[in-house]
Amino acid sequence: MSTALSSTEAYSLLSLSLAAVGVLSNTFTGEGEPLMASIAFSCLAFSSCYALIRWLGDAFIRRGFKGKDLCKLKQTEIPETMGAVCAMVYLFTIITFIPWAFYKDIVVATSGGGNRDVIRELEEVETGRLLHRFPHNKLASYLSAILSLQTIVLLGIGDDVFDIRWRHKVFIPAVAAIPMLIVYFVDFGVTQMVVPTPLRRYLGELFDLGWVYYAYMALLSIFSSNSINILAGINGIEVAQSLVVAMLIVANDVLYLSPFAAYPHPATDSHLFSLYLLLPFIGVSLALLKHNWFPAKVFVGDTYCYFAGMVFAVDGILGHFSKTLMLLLLPQGFNFLYSAPQLFHVVPCPRHRLPHFNARTGLLECSRVEFKKPLGRPVAEGLKLLHRLRLLDVETNESGQVVSSSNFTLINLWLVWFGPMREDRLALGLLGFQTAIGAVGLLVRHRMALLVFTTDNW
Amino acid sequence: MSTALSSTEAYSLLSLSLAAVGVLSNTFTGEGEPLMASIAFSCLAFSSCYALIRWLGDAFIRRGFKGKDLCKLKQTEIPETMGAVCAMVYLFTIITFIPWAFYKDIVVATSGGGNRDVIRELEEVETGRLLHRFPHNKLASYLSAILSLQTIVLLGIGDDVFDIRWRHKVFIPAVAAIPMLIVYFVDFGVTQMVVPTPLRRYLGELFDLGWVYYAYMALLSIFSSNSINILAGINGIEVAQSLVVAMLIVANDVLYLSPFAAYPHPATDSHLFSLYLLLPFIGVSLALLKHNWFPAKVFVGDTYCYFAGMVFAVDGILGHFSKTLMLLLLPQGFNFLYSAPQLFHVVPCPRHRLPHFNARTGLLECSRVEFKKPLGRPVAEGLKLLHRLRLLDVETNESGQVVSSSNFTLINLWLVWFGPMREDRLALGLLGFQTAIGAVGLLVRHRMALLVFTTDNW
Repeated sequence: MSTALSSTEAYSLLSLSLAAVGVLSNTFTGEGEPLMASIAFSCLAFSSCYALIRWLGDAFIRRGFKGKDLCKLKQTEIPETMGAVCAMVYLFTIITFIPWAFYKDIVVATSGGGNRDVIRELEEVETGRLLHRFPHNKLASYLSAILSLQTIVLLGIGDDVFDIRWRHKVFIPAVAAIPMLIVYFVDFGVTQMVVPTPLRRYLGELFDLGWVYYAYMALLSIFSSNSINILAGINGIEVAQSLVVAMLIVANDVLYLSPFAAYPHPATDSHLFSLYLLLPFIGVSLALLKHNWFPAKVFVGDTYCYFAGMVFAVDGILGHFSKTLMLLLLPQGFNFLYSAPQLFHVVPCPRHRLPHFNARTGLLECSRVEFKKPLGRPVAEGLKLLHRLRLLDVETNESGQVVSSSNFTLINLWLVWFGPMREDRLALGLLGFQTAIGAVGLLVRHRMALLVFTTDNW
Repeated sequence: MSTALSSTEAYSLLSLSLAAVGVLSNTFTGEGEPLMASIAFSCLAFSSCYALIRWLGDAFIRRGFKGKDLCKLKQTEIPETMGAVCAMVYLFTIITFIPWAFYKDIVVATSGGGNRDVIRELEEVETGRLLHRFPHNKLASYLSAILSLQTIVLLGIGDDVFDIRWRHKVFIPAVAAIPMLIVYFVDFGVTQMVVPTPLRRYLGELFDLGWVYYAYMALLSIFSSNSINILAGINGIEVAQSLVVAMLIVANDVLYLSPFAAYPHPATDSHLFSLYLLLPFIGVSLALLKHNWFPAKVFVGDTYCYFAGMVFAVDGILGHFSKTLMLLLLPQGFNFLYSAPQLFHVVPCPRHRLPHFNARTGLLECSRVEFKKPLGRPVAEGLKLLHRLRLLDVETNESGQVVSSSNFTLINLWLVWFGPMREDRLALGLLGFQTAIGAVGLLVRHRMALLVFTTDNW
């Protein structure tokens, strides 16, 4: 990969950045338009991330952050852990954005002295569908989100540098969630949930979960980060799946903010909050995807997967839509459950479960695990059942014993279903599948919520 | 260095930790006593930092974070960048501490409903010299302090990994200060200074510095971090000088909180805030000093110097005693000014300016720079003047030309003054000097402030 930007790239990035700076400087003259500013910041984040990935590639290789792509004919060394660059640009962006989201509100709150103009303006905001600024008390939440994200980046880099063991690194996101949970505790502290209608006769309308709610939030962080980290291994899949999730959440947010939604909606603030965190994430991820898509010129590293998962967890928790988030992570959840037999060593797990690269055809084929020792009877029967359900490809010998099967990952399952294919087509297929599931999930969430709750919350 | 703890060490650390946990669990039954909790947390931070430095040493060496001690006879490789461990433990500690400083206040603020008990209790707090909890609006400041410290750790590690160039790394602390400055801007925004009495007829009582104040805060961060980074090079000096500064600030804070001070003092909150940030810093620094003191078993790395300087800057800015902080950093300031001719290449600067280790005597001698090209006349005269003032050791040849001088650092100057000495005696001498200057500085600050201001602020 050339470390210099081509002149086309340089000019495009420069014009995009200039446009963004123009929009930002315009926000000073008007009301501050935080959503416009957020979009402009996201464009700036895209440009700087794009350029930095190029410029820093060599330095990463020199310092030993490099790897070989096993699914290619020619295995040159390319930079690894580039997600760290992404994450740093992201953090810098959401920190610099703070005054746009929070400043004007303070001015309104403190100008005092019976200033009628201000009051009229506020009314206008309420009725005129201008998106208003955050109340100041959201600042602590926003800062705690940044703290948790910064913590996961620190720990993720630690992991990429020191190669922490699997059984320890699973808990990294829970540690990173601590700042957010602590601030939630001192700042907000609501741990009640709305009880679904069928259960109300037992639990009442609201049920206080207490510490269970904090455990739930920590587990959500663990699930979100690790499930993205597990659905990995082919070019672009880590970044692209995160982009799909991010864009589906943005679509959900827009439902609450669009002119067709009821207004003022009680959840407006939460969904604005969510957008402010997600738009810059989409910016930096697009820049990374450009370099990580087939044929990859950089690898993203565990840092990126943790970071992306944590962005979703923070967003879902502080935006109060954690159940919707889980709907959107269904494919990742399925992949985790499907992987479980190998992860927990019910059946043997080889060191790598990447698809197998066939050098002759240039296509990826599903990789297989050989069972040298015969499997226990219940396990063997289970595998045969999965085979009949077309959820696994099992090979048996003449005596009916299971001798090998495809590896237990969604990526391999896709290859079982659709046969060998090129790496980018495989990634596209999986992403299409994920988008479809997510879109259906959102539809179900908004159409069917009334079946179990008395009101949908939009 | 053995990576395992000796049994004495293990038992001591364990008992200290148990005692700390005991104190902490006691705070739940009472009022929360945040200052007690902070002390207990600092002990926990000391223990965990001590153990982690031991346990992680090998992993650091394996990953290439290692260096040789040039001032020793036997130059074995020892772990480098151990300040990062320190900083991580510190960050984790001040994050976990949040509920103790902020929780109860929220309960009081929201329990409402004419709860007389609570009100009586608050009055008691005001008059009874119990240290009360923070108002909730300080939470954003506290979080922004953590954000800035986390940022400097991230950038510091980046520097230790990638060896950023001098002219770039000078600005790292200014970048790290951004989160704090932004939150200061949206949250507090006071940029007025009290004008010293002699200038009042020109400027009035208060003078609004506007953006200059933000520039001042950024510069203070740069100065504080880099001045510690420059006064470095012999075992223990980076950590020990930071400990001296930290303890002098704590002494200053205690002046405002002690039973002899006027109460309730308007600056009580600020100085409590300062203590909460400094006590854990003292904890982790002591653990590091134990391993970094002569003969050093680990090196601290740039990360530590940046981190320590940033702790002071954040503390001074958010605790509103930045001028006092500068008094306490006078020796570092002198070292910077004294180094300036070499740093800015007015006279040649060798790659290393460490004292010279004399393998025969085992003592450190001042290192010298040879002037191969004759110096310009004004520079040469300047050096000769410094020599006459006993601020430099200059060697001239028979024709009166300057051919060499001692290097321009406080450490070398000390050796010029007092002759060759062992590394630990050199460090102790410098620390004694620094402590004396700092103590005099504090005395002057509190006794003489009335000469230029109408009231001292305690």
